[in-house]
Amino acid sequence: MDKVYQYQIENKQRYLDELFDLLRIPSISADSSYKNEIINCAKSISRNLNESGFENVEICETQGNPIIYGDKIISSDLPTVLIYGHYDVQPADPINLWETDPFDPVIKVSGIHPEGAIYARGSADDKGQFFMHVKAIESLIKTNSLPCNVKLIIEGEEEIGSVNLGNFLKENLSKLSCDIILISDTHILSNQVPTVTTGLRGLSYVEVEVEGPNRDLHSGLYGGAVPNPIHVLCDMIASLIDEDGKIRVKGFYDRVKELSSEDRSELNKLPFNEIEFKNSIGLKGIQGEKGYTSLERISIRPTLDVNGIWGGYTGEGAKTVIPSKAHAKISMRLVPDQNPEEITELFTKHFLSIAPKNVQVTVTPHHGGNAYVLPSSNPGYIAAKLAMEKTFNKEVLPYRTGGSIPIVSLFEELLGAKSVLMGFGLDSDAIHSPNEHYGIYNFYKGIETIPYFLNYYTENFKNK
Amino acid sequence: MDKVYQYQIENKQRYLDELFDLLRIPSISADSSYKNEIINCAKSISRNLNESGFENVEICETQGNPIIYGDKIISSDLPTVLIYGHYDVQPADPINLWETDPFDPVIKVSGIHPEGAIYARGSADDKGQFFMHVKAIESLIKTNSLPCNVKLIIEGEEEIGSVNLGNFLKENLSKLSCDIILISDTHILSNQVPTVTTGLRGLSYVEVEVEGPNRDLHSGLYGGAVPNPIHVLCDMIASLIDEDGKIRVKGFYDRVKELSSEDRSELNKLPFNEIEFKNSIGLKGIQGEKGYTSLERISIRPTLDVNGIWGGYTGEGAKTVIPSKAHAKISMRLVPDQNPEEITELFTKHFLSIAPKNVQVTVTPHHGGNAYVLPSSNPGYIAAKLAMEKTFNKEVLPYRTGGSIPIVSLFEELLGAKSVLMGFGLDSDAIHSPNEHYGIYNFYKGIETIPYFLNYYTENFKNK
Repeated sequence: MDKVYQYQIENKQRYLDELFDLLRIPSISADSSYKNEIINCAKSISRNLNESGFENVEICETQGNPIIYGDKIISSDLPTVLIYGHYDVQPADPINLWETDPFDPVIKVSGIHPEGAIYARGSADDKGQFFMHVKAIESLIKTNSLPCNVKLIIEGEEEIGSVNLGNFLKENLSKLSCDIILISDTHILSNQVPTVTTGLRGLSYVEVEVEGPNRDLHSGLYGGAVPNPIHVLCDMIASLIDEDGKIRVKGFYDRVKELSSEDRSELNKLPFNEIEFKNSIGLKGIQGEKGYTSLERISIRPTLDVNGIWGGYTGEGAKTVIPSKAHAKISMRLVPDQNPEEITELFTKHFLSIAPKNVQVTVTPHHGGNAYVLPSSNPGYIAAKLAMEKTFNKEVLPYRTGGSIPIVSLFEELLGAKSVLMGFGLDSDAIHSPNEHYGIYNFYKGIETIPYFLNYYTENFKNK
Repeated sequence: MDKVYQYQIENKQRYLDELFDLLRIPSISADSSYKNEIINCAKSISRNLNESGFENVEICETQGNPIIYGDKIISSDLPTVLIYGHYDVQPADPINLWETDPFDPVIKVSGIHPEGAIYARGSADDKGQFFMHVKAIESLIKTNSLPCNVKLIIEGEEEIGSVNLGNFLKENLSKLSCDIILISDTHILSNQVPTVTTGLRGLSYVEVEVEGPNRDLHSGLYGGAVPNPIHVLCDMIASLIDEDGKIRVKGFYDRVKELSSEDRSELNKLPFNEIEFKNSIGLKGIQGEKGYTSLERISIRPTLDVNGIWGGYTGEGAKTVIPSKAHAKISMRLVPDQNPEEITELFTKHFLSIAPKNVQVTVTPHHGGNAYVLPSSNPGYIAAKLAMEKTFNKEVLPYRTGGSIPIVSLFEELLGAKSVLMGFGLDSDAIHSPNEHYGIYNFYKGIETIPYFLNYYTENFKNK
């Protein structure tokens, strides 16, 4: 592996420059006005794949944003690893809270990143992470060291629920056939405590609307005699979680399995400092579901959060209006065995059932996704653990995290392959937030680690 | 009065054209980016006053938007009527719900307005209404029929709490001395049931902010373990009103006087059809404080309404964020004897007291105003009643309304004069809402009625 690492060292600066070029493209999928940037980003990646030595590179059209494909097939006797990533990013707002332009990457040094971190939307989620694979495989191809077959797909709709990925998979089952899927879109606990993500929460995401009067009203002339949709929405939201932090949606917990006390105590062995956790986000106090630790609350327990709310006058100054409508975006994080469609249905039923008779309430589902667990006996997990232990020189722990990557269950269902979530980000990367960043150390560590994964996985495969 | 009315008839179209010119100026006071339009509007009005025969016309600078002054003084033996209006308007948003451009007035015929209504922001509130006075007095001056002294002030900050009017009054006490103040900034019950507004609710308006984590968080990685500011705000808002529709702010009702059962039954004699009320705003059901009729709820009872709420992601699609902050604008309508400053203090104290310990809550007061009552024995009320009975040819009833015009108590305090609220709008004019409009019938009826008011008031004054 020395020549591979040597190649990586020699091309270090170019790797970073190429990533910066990608980060400069505001490929926001949630806002259709960025459609052209999505296309630009896809073209840029496909060019890079060709230059990196990938073959059969293709920009595959879908009903939505294109998916980029590339591969390098060596032999049918060798295992095939399918790498997945996404080039679309979250919107940058609230834009005023960014210290630098979200689409003009800069490197800044901090206590946690003495070697610097790249500040830009998408730096950690997921451009900086999928690009590690492109460059790691480049280093293997260019040094004639690739140990197995690799296929790569980079999609452009992960942040809006991978709505067209399922059809793409179905239409390309043989092209995408593989033994294992490798994804870097998660974080490790810290650079001192590297982890492989073995569990992910699922997601149900809905938008709700409460309509009262059929037009905005003057609060002086009507106030007191009509239902105010904002009040009604607040009442309804307030009623969704009880005093113990339990979600009141009927049937919500029916399929939630309690972990054994062994599993819980194993989980709680992970280094997690509640005071540091609290201080890192400037909180005066934590809170959550009664009977569970903070670590459990963000990993093995389902949750409900309002992600956005709006209604009435929100501009400068004072406007005495009773709005016709109020809205909220509400998402639920799910644990294994909870079915997103079923939860969305249960939520909808519950939310409509608590609506007062004199308003009109509608619930519109957005995307969802199943929760996921990777057993520690899986060869992919073992290869990831060995690879990270090699490059970090630390014991690697399994980690169940709160985020959702809905596509992992889609892969399992359609391609019949498990996904290994070997991410290199940190919890503090501020993904989905202003000032998202990705450590330079983590970027290069990922590029260094990925070849080891492919080697360990291939070795194990041959020994079977 | 024949020649006055004759003059009005002859100049009918010009009156309307001049009003249209005023309505084309987006003089929005709540948004400082419209400052130039405010100045344009003030200049336009001052030109019109000069052309109409007013004297000593002046654009008076204040710390904020200018106030326009004009007068016509005949004799110190005659009474002086001070007319007040405002040329600033509410913001036009939500702009997409306007059927036509809010600042390009058009006339549309409807069931309630067979003679047509002027659709534009400010048509009823208050450009269309103060302009009736300008044109009525023009008709009196040009026909040498003005029976008394008139002074006129048109301000540009009514929609943001008349923040600089108090100082202007204090600095111009003798210039503004008068016997009665006449204001058209209210509505009548209907063109068949003309009313004079004899009571107004006061106002306390605050903005609240709930801050949880010091940055936006990924709801997957943090959801379940941290306080979500939107939830907290919803909980707090939900707790402000109890199941009986009573406001839970401690001390809120302490100064609220119950009306006698005679006064209540007199009030409830006003024609008010609950089903029509409900249908006119497309509501499936009304609601409000237990033990009171809808008419009482919107007139003699204090209320609390959320006028705006915002926080988190409110754009297209789905973003899984736990926002750092959530905000709301909350206003309370007050009845006589409730003091706005005291209520703002009580609200602030209460709101902070119900805030969970792990979030930071701030309350910022906006403007406020006292409630007001005009006794039916007041000569101004009598003159208004007689004038409207003359031109509408219907019995005129006193009416207590829910809106607030904070300046009437300021006038009483500083100028020692009562205000007569002789408005000509309709409840259905959609003021502060999309598609605000003002009946052509009402506009001309106002111009016809105002000279009668001045005559009746002067006659009564002479007989004293």
